[in-house]
Amino acid sequence: MSTIAFIGLGIMGGPMARHLVEAGHRVIGFNRSSEPVERLAAAGGEGATSVADAVRDAEVTITVVPDSPDVESLALGEDGIYANARQGSIHIDMSSIRPDVAARLAEAGKAAGVRVMDAPVSGGETGAIEGTLSVMVGAEREDFDEVKPILETMGTTVVLVGPPGSGQTVKAANQLIVAGTIELVAEAIVFLRAYGVDTEAAVAVLAGGLAGSRILERKAANMLAGNFEPGFRIDLHHKDMGIVTAAARERDVAIPLGALTAQLVGAVRAQGDGKLDHSALLKGVERLSGRKPLGGG
Amino acid sequence: MSTIAFIGLGIMGGPMARHLVEAGHRVIGFNRSSEPVERLAAAGGEGATSVADAVRDAEVTITVVPDSPDVESLALGEDGIYANARQGSIHIDMSSIRPDVAARLAEAGKAAGVRVMDAPVSGGETGAIEGTLSVMVGAEREDFDEVKPILETMGTTVVLVGPPGSGQTVKAANQLIVAGTIELVAEAIVFLRAYGVDTEAAVAVLAGGLAGSRILERKAANMLAGNFEPGFRIDLHHKDMGIVTAAARERDVAIPLGALTAQLVGAVRAQGDGKLDHSALLKGVERLSGRKPLGGG
Repeated sequence: MSTIAFIGLGIMGGPMARHLVEAGHRVIGFNRSSEPVERLAAAGGEGATSVADAVRDAEVTITVVPDSPDVESLALGEDGIYANARQGSIHIDMSSIRPDVAARLAEAGKAAGVRVMDAPVSGGETGAIEGTLSVMVGAEREDFDEVKPILETMGTTVVLVGPPGSGQTVKAANQLIVAGTIELVAEAIVFLRAYGVDTEAAVAVLAGGLAGSRILERKAANMLAGNFEPGFRIDLHHKDMGIVTAAARERDVAIPLGALTAQLVGAVRAQGDGKLDHSALLKGVERLSGRKPLGGG
Repeated sequence: MSTIAFIGLGIMGGPMARHLVEAGHRVIGFNRSSEPVERLAAAGGEGATSVADAVRDAEVTITVVPDSPDVESLALGEDGIYANARQGSIHIDMSSIRPDVAARLAEAGKAAGVRVMDAPVSGGETGAIEGTLSVMVGAEREDFDEVKPILETMGTTVVLVGPPGSGQTVKAANQLIVAGTIELVAEAIVFLRAYGVDTEAAVAVLAGGLAGSRILERKAANMLAGNFEPGFRIDLHHKDMGIVTAAARERDVAIPLGALTAQLVGAVRAQGDGKLDHSALLKGVERLSGRKPLGGG
């Protein structure tokens, strides 16, 4: 069993940290606000009052925070992880951030004697609570092998996809496909409605054929009902579309559908729906087509 | 058991007609070229030398031909189905054509005493051979109920989605989602390759999460291998993207991703890849990004 510092005990990090406690690890939690730390302590973990305090004894430090600058400010600087963690310890960043930032942090960690890997997840709050996340890992093979059992405490699919940064690259591709597929389904639904088709029967037959997808399975019923409770918010997907479009541009890759999807996600956010589930892309298509959107949140 | 005229014995129609023969129906086949008619006769069917000859005794006439004008020229005119079919008989068009043409044919049929329905399919040559097609039916409920057993001889999912024309509308939505999803997966693959990610591992983890789709399951391995043997040809998908963009425009529905996908399918066709499988959209993304495409056919 390991001593694990866990930084960022939010909607995702909270349940992930509790799985580690239940598996028997010593888990030292840190969070900007103190309430989630108290909750972790009540579940059998420990609390720390600073990053330095959390990481001092840890063999592994895990971070789960919203965006690239959040991870950078935790990792770098004299109060940060790399200045205070044990030599040879491992930092696993499970946030979804820019692949180039992940690669840069791996370099910075190496210079400080910390082995850094990126391990963003897919599966949402449900996956975090149930411990069934998909984890896309960018790491050196030997570092991956060392922490794989820890990652498997939180996820059922834990895959090494390449060197540091690669996990974030795959997560970016994941977000491109997910947003694009939601938009395609949204366009199909508005199209079918305009023709007075039985959309429930249509979605069933579409889901059974080559058009079938997890989005059709998991999101279409709520979309048809106009229920856009998150789930995964447009605001966060907007951030992720910024990551994938910038990363593609960086390597001279044209992603025409991805780029247009990024615009459409941004438009729905600009229209005031940033707090809704990403399936609210349907509302954007309805507005584009001069139709009154169903549903709110 | 019924007497069924079957017009269009090609890659799809040939095996579909044979399933009807095997189920015990009297099947009278007609085709522009005679060889497929001889093959049907050898399998226990009968051959006709004209449309009028084929439909004269039929309770049900099925057509499976490439495009809207093909169906119109079979159905209308003094040598056509409606002028020669029995009063009260049913015409099931299983081609993929424009919804407005399907609705217009239903009106023309009604005026001539023929009940018309559209029942396009999804599932490709494999589905036709195995009798596992998905069939999207636009029809009056009572007509649907009457021929459902016949359709179930050819498909496993047979769903009534609305009045005549609706089957074609759902098929158009299907083709929108399928082409768009292939393009999204293609963009993701080129992006992942540009970052040196292990694309096979990445595709496995993407397929397991919210980005998962039948396209990822069935097409990604061939795409990674640069194998674009059809399958379903770019040429035909180009026709279908023309149908869905025109039909959306007709009812004031904006389909931004669908419209861009139509452009990208058209571009790959213009670049000379019309005879390849629709997964060859990957070659288009590679060329857009200044990369040398893998594979040919």
